Amino acid sequence: MAAVEPTPLRRPRADQARLVADVLRHQIHAGAYADGGLPSEQELAAEFFVSRNTVREALTTLKEEGLIERGPRTGTHVALRKYEHGLDALLGLKETFKGYGEVRNEVRVIQEVNAPPAVAHRLRVDPGARVIFIERLRYLGDLPLSLDKTYLTPDVGEAVIEHQLETNDVFALIERVTGRRLGSANLSLEAVAADSHSAATLQVPDSAPLLLLERLTHLDDGTPVDLEYIRMRGDRITLRSNLLRDI
Amino acid sequence: MAAVEPTPLRRPRADQARLVADVLRHQIHAGAYADGGLPSEQELAAEFFVSRNTVREALTTLKEEGLIERGPRTGTHVALRKYEHGLDALLGLKETFKGYGEVRNEVRVIQEVNAPPAVAHRLRVDPGARVIFIERLRYLGDLPLSLDKTYLTPDVGEAVIEHQLETNDVFALIERVTGRRLGSANLSLEAVAADSHSAATLQVPDSAPLLLLERLTHLDDGTPVDLEYIRMRGDRITLRSNLLRDI
Repeated sequence: MAAVEPTPLRRPRADQARLVADVLRHQIHAGAYADGGLPSEQELAAEFFVSRNTVREALTTLKEEGLIERGPRTGTHVALRKYEHGLDALLGLKETFKGYGEVRNEVRVIQEVNAPPAVAHRLRVDPGARVIFIERLRYLGDLPLSLDKTYLTPDVGEAVIEHQLETNDVFALIERVTGRRLGSANLSLEAVAADSHSAATLQVPDSAPLLLLERLTHLDDGTPVDLEYIRMRGDRITLRSNLLRDI
Repeated sequence: MAAVEPTPLRRPRADQARLVADVLRHQIHAGAYADGGLPSEQELAAEFFVSRNTVREALTTLKEEGLIERGPRTGTHVALRKYEHGLDALLGLKETFKGYGEVRNEVRVIQEVNAPPAVAHRLRVDPGARVIFIERLRYLGDLPLSLDKTYLTPDVGEAVIEHQLETNDVFALIERVTGRRLGSANLSLEAVAADSHSAATLQVPDSAPLLLLERLTHLDDGTPVDLEYIRMRGDRITLRSNLLRDI
């Protein structure tokens, strides 16, 4: 190998274990062990060119994340499926998970509220204007995936809440009631610790990592209609995207 | 307002406080209080149409997140700046933060390793082939932002590590040593809790929320060359993107 600087460090086992865990985590999410069974410790040690102790440490990490289960007789199995949500297209959850299972929404709040200035500004309504606020807990089958808080502009909001929110994506309803297509959305994405209310609602431990997606969606004529704050379970959702160097 | 179902719930103060905190958090990240000062509790209560107790609760949340500082005489100030990283274009950190400050890299590891099968598969090299592994802690000024682990294909990797990794993006170096442009990347994004090594390295508490970005980058002829696992501080990085409904 070519001379390098600085001098390579010796990598402690914890570092190697973290790397093995990273790669295995990806494999699990990619469905590589779809039948549920991982290779034995010995096989993994050979695959990764590391010691069995290192493999054991990596598997302990994944077990603590709830990603795998281990038993003395049963071996190592995938415990938890992560769901992929595409970041490339502007899709509702129900559209995204078509094929995975039934998306249903527990509607927790529907009410008119005075738009706080920041919300009013982004939705381009007067500060204090009445907007529609909706809070939904979204399930895939029996699994709570995300807690969504949505502000809709008055006209669109009042028409949307005439419809079944339990079984429809808000995106689809906006297109139905306006007769227009949605155009573009601006989104920002953060990793945050679950506050205790969100944790209890999403059935995760306090301070568990969540993906917080803020999304402002416009009609195809550029009118902003929908401002959302979406908290997704970090242990259940992977966002996927493709990027180009030259755009 | 039109009749709605189910019956709106009365929203407890904690819920309202969370909403106020969400909106203020966005404002802070958007630079709305760029001079550093937030409005008084009384002004915020009027802006959001909530009680001062609710405002206080929201501000407590933001203080616990390290986002603001509060003093009896000095009022409420922004304590912590979040940096935006675009998800739309394929850019290195240094290219992204041009204008924010100096990006420098603490190179922690450079070594040849045997590619684990999953890495080999994604980089399209033989399992066990020698690939170049680089671990860097990336700073903006004095602030550690992300811990990046990079696997490079052998030819590209050996040429890249001949260059200064402290001050250059790997993306820029790949383009320099190959004489080609990068093409596209596949990425996946998760919220994870910081393991203790990552936490200590990134100077955050154990289990603090991190954004984990896995990115496989190709040359413009489609050859995969660079597989990365990037852990970004959740309290410091916001990812931004724009989406279209019809693509």
